[in-house]
Amino acid sequence: MKHPLLLSVALLASCNAAPAPAPTKETAPAAAPAQKSALAPTEIVAAAPAADWAAIAPSDLLVMDLASDAKGAARRVVIQLLPAPFSQGWIGNIRKLAAAKWWDGTSVNRVQDGYVVQWGDPDGEDRAKAKPLPAGIAVVPEGEYQLYDAAFTAEAAAGQAAKDTLRGMTDPYAPGYMFRDGFPFALSGDDKATWPIHCYGTVGVGRDYPPDTGSGAELYTVIGQAPRQLDRNIAVVGRVIEGMEHLSSLPRGTGDIGFYKTAEERTPILTIRIGSDVPDLPRFEYLSTESKSFAAYADARANRRDSFYIRPAGGVDICNVPVPVRRVK
Amino acid sequence: MKHPLLLSVALLASCNAAPAPAPTKETAPAAAPAQKSALAPTEIVAAAPAADWAAIAPSDLLVMDLASDAKGAARRVVIQLLPAPFSQGWIGNIRKLAAAKWWDGTSVNRVQDGYVVQWGDPDGEDRAKAKPLPAGIAVVPEGEYQLYDAAFTAEAAAGQAAKDTLRGMTDPYAPGYMFRDGFPFALSGDDKATWPIHCYGTVGVGRDYPPDTGSGAELYTVIGQAPRQLDRNIAVVGRVIEGMEHLSSLPRGTGDIGFYKTAEERTPILTIRIGSDVPDLPRFEYLSTESKSFAAYADARANRRDSFYIRPAGGVDICNVPVPVRRVK
Repeated sequence: MKHPLLLSVALLASCNAAPAPAPTKETAPAAAPAQKSALAPTEIVAAAPAADWAAIAPSDLLVMDLASDAKGAARRVVIQLLPAPFSQGWIGNIRKLAAAKWWDGTSVNRVQDGYVVQWGDPDGEDRAKAKPLPAGIAVVPEGEYQLYDAAFTAEAAAGQAAKDTLRGMTDPYAPGYMFRDGFPFALSGDDKATWPIHCYGTVGVGRDYPPDTGSGAELYTVIGQAPRQLDRNIAVVGRVIEGMEHLSSLPRGTGDIGFYKTAEERTPILTIRIGSDVPDLPRFEYLSTESKSFAAYADARANRRDSFYIRPAGGVDICNVPVPVRRVK
Repeated sequence: MKHPLLLSVALLASCNAAPAPAPTKETAPAAAPAQKSALAPTEIVAAAPAADWAAIAPSDLLVMDLASDAKGAARRVVIQLLPAPFSQGWIGNIRKLAAAKWWDGTSVNRVQDGYVVQWGDPDGEDRAKAKPLPAGIAVVPEGEYQLYDAAFTAEAAAGQAAKDTLRGMTDPYAPGYMFRDGFPFALSGDDKATWPIHCYGTVGVGRDYPPDTGSGAELYTVIGQAPRQLDRNIAVVGRVIEGMEHLSSLPRGTGDIGFYKTAEERTPILTIRIGSDVPDLPRFEYLSTESKSFAAYADARANRRDSFYIRPAGGVDICNVPVPVRRVK
């Protein structure tokens, strides 16, 4: 086996695999690994029993179909929306915008390398030309960037402490952290606030300067190192679970902060719909963040003992424990 | 001002800018920010005096020219090599490979979303077809993944403690950290080992299973969340300082771990040379990691108080303090 095995776990889990072997003459034959002392994270995920996977309701998905690529291939991006109680004001707006087909005919307008891809109304900043929003779009208070829900937090924290999943994980951005319902969250030191965080693939709500908090009509996805400085400063509403490459590999914009300079450079958006309104959508499930398999996976991410590694790190960044997602067979 | 200002600092520093304002009708006019209590990191970099910038010797650059893109535009990637004493065995090999024009006619063979782009001999894994390496390529012991250089470490640690730059920065992967000579490093708890780390844009050496350590002929660049689990398990040799978008926006491979399935999908490499052998290369400099400006920049990255932010994080990940680079005017 010359290549570490890639298992059929969706995008975020797959970044687990090691760089491929180097094609050098001095390389040992390596027909088989020298030793196999532990499972790799992808192997733990592949071995997880069906009971450790949780279904994602189609009504909790946002499906964006971009115009076909230069070769005529379809480009679909599937986003899982955050669970309640987080960001529900913005997510309510997003549901209204999708139902109104508001995004159809808009575009991807900004691609800044190592940072974000952003989409919505390309004329949004020109008040004379901006596309009107549908009725009923709420203004969300900035207090919604962080919340406290005792039951949500306590259940997650208790479950994870018992499982001893996350030893060796510290967070420079927050005193605490937890996984719940398929997403990572940060915690304040006094356990009085919980907030969703920005990782690779996270989807958030573009906004103007405070006190604006954004409507949800302009969205972005992180395509580089987790910009955690945005946590509690801007609304997180979900994460890309399939088709991330259709955003991350777009040509970078050459204007200020990655905006495209010409309309021709923008990628047209055909439609954005809630998943329950998309007839041909596969079903998805995530590795339950409350399961034993997730605990083992997180531990293996922090302590790589599979055959490629010689020194386990003994720690891990919360954004380096992406929650595995797969299509239901 | 509707867009946060983008200053002319090369790629890695530019990921600093905030997502653009949302084009919403309920947005306050925001012709000017409500308040301006502190400089943004990019503003600190723009204001840094000339003395705070350090020249990068062309002999410490590796320049990769890819085949032109579909529109005929040139694609050049510039890599700054790690300072001594780190990874010098592999870097010595890389200098020999460039001098022998060994990479000319090879290709980018793997693009795995959120992880790495990898290049070198596409036939490297087929012993019958692999391109022979030039004479004098060293086998580097794995002990070189981490080193201890008392003077290098002590000088950096003392300088940074005095500057109080990095308060609020913890690292889940290592007990300590430091910046020196334009790069981030991790430290062991007993200060007996120092090692370069994997961030967005880091360049490393592909290898086979241990005890192989790679020759340097197959290289990769990180295009997603910092895969810090690779630290001390694989050799870091530098980082991309210009042209990162030519790698990060390449189409993702659809084979195992992002390898392209067909030769046609690969991006040809025209040449790879050491910078001192490239006649038309601009001069580059980095914001000295020993300067007061860098200290202020790192502090601002950890505590965003510029007008877009409402809650400074109070901490920062070491990979979220990319060392600014610019072309010399």
